[in-house]
Amino acid sequence: MKRILPSALLELIDEFGAMPGVGARTAERYAYAVLKRDPKRAKRLAKALDELHAKVKLCPVTFALIDKSEEVSELYADQSINKKLIAVVEEPLEIVAIEKTGQFNGTYPVLGGAISPIDGIGPEQLHIPELIERIKQDDAEEIIIATNASVEGESTALFLQRFIREAGLKLTISRLARGIPVGVDLEYADQISLTHALEGRREL
Amino acid sequence: MKRILPSALLELIDEFGAMPGVGARTAERYAYAVLKRDPKRAKRLAKALDELHAKVKLCPVTFALIDKSEEVSELYADQSINKKLIAVVEEPLEIVAIEKTGQFNGTYPVLGGAISPIDGIGPEQLHIPELIERIKQDDAEEIIIATNASVEGESTALFLQRFIREAGLKLTISRLARGIPVGVDLEYADQISLTHALEGRREL
Repeated sequence: MKRILPSALLELIDEFGAMPGVGARTAERYAYAVLKRDPKRAKRLAKALDELHAKVKLCPVTFALIDKSEEVSELYADQSINKKLIAVVEEPLEIVAIEKTGQFNGTYPVLGGAISPIDGIGPEQLHIPELIERIKQDDAEEIIIATNASVEGESTALFLQRFIREAGLKLTISRLARGIPVGVDLEYADQISLTHALEGRREL
Repeated sequence: MKRILPSALLELIDEFGAMPGVGARTAERYAYAVLKRDPKRAKRLAKALDELHAKVKLCPVTFALIDKSEEVSELYADQSINKKLIAVVEEPLEIVAIEKTGQFNGTYPVLGGAISPIDGIGPEQLHIPELIERIKQDDAEEIIIATNASVEGESTALFLQRFIREAGLKLTISRLARGIPVGVDLEYADQISLTHALEGRREL
């Protein structure tokens, strides 16, 4: 077998190909793009990758991602935050989506996943005790359960709702509204979103 | 503005986002995937990126990519290769596609692009003198012009054809067949491919 590509390039293609959702052709394209461009750019990307794990940690209060040098995430420590309003999300990046709306002024605990018996993830693997602790300490008034609309997300929401009630906590429990997204015509809306939209209809 | 993500993660998202075809959301997903997985993997990818440019060079004969330690690409040096059969491609990665068919036993020169006045690329930026030299030295019998089917690729093919004839070289000049790809029904074939398929029809 003739060697078609140099080993250093094959190695990089392999490593790119190990990233989620990157197929062989895409990995080839990425590797070749890196090669064709300024070596300084490749070095910058290399440095960012090399240092990532050493520079990032989980906030002990919100379980959001923070700099190693920080103590508590600004999503909890910032003066402007209403600590009595809590949103629960599955993963740290979901915080970005909520913050981008500019409509939420509360704090978060990240659960660190969703309950999924098939993957061996039970409630004990999630940051649920810390969530209960947070509600009690800050005397929270409302918790928005912002888990995903997947089977796992929905069962986690149900579990949390029961768990909070059984713990005797009296705060409001809410869930993000499901419905037809903006820009989608009725005839193209999926059945489940439409069902949710009907159930959640609002009087005008 | 509250800091939502740690700066090391933002930096990595920025660097991923600078790769071709990677949008903000995809860059976020890649960066988070790297963070969630084994730090060793991130270090391996970092190393591959860091060393890439130092370990790869262009073959002085074929202009294919080779290891720094090699002298000439195996696509030219290998004993089994028929040096009298030459395929011209625009970019090094296109060699991979041709080699994968297992139907080509010749050698290559990579042009290093296609003629494109709008991007300021004329024939003098491409490896055309070296191609002529190769044809003469190896007394080549056939050259397959395998440039892309784009406007630039087609004009490069036309230019090469004339240039080779004007240089008084007598070898066969061919071009890859255009037509309807395998697995595409006639009714879904695009007009240009169908036109090519009609023009290039073969008697049975």
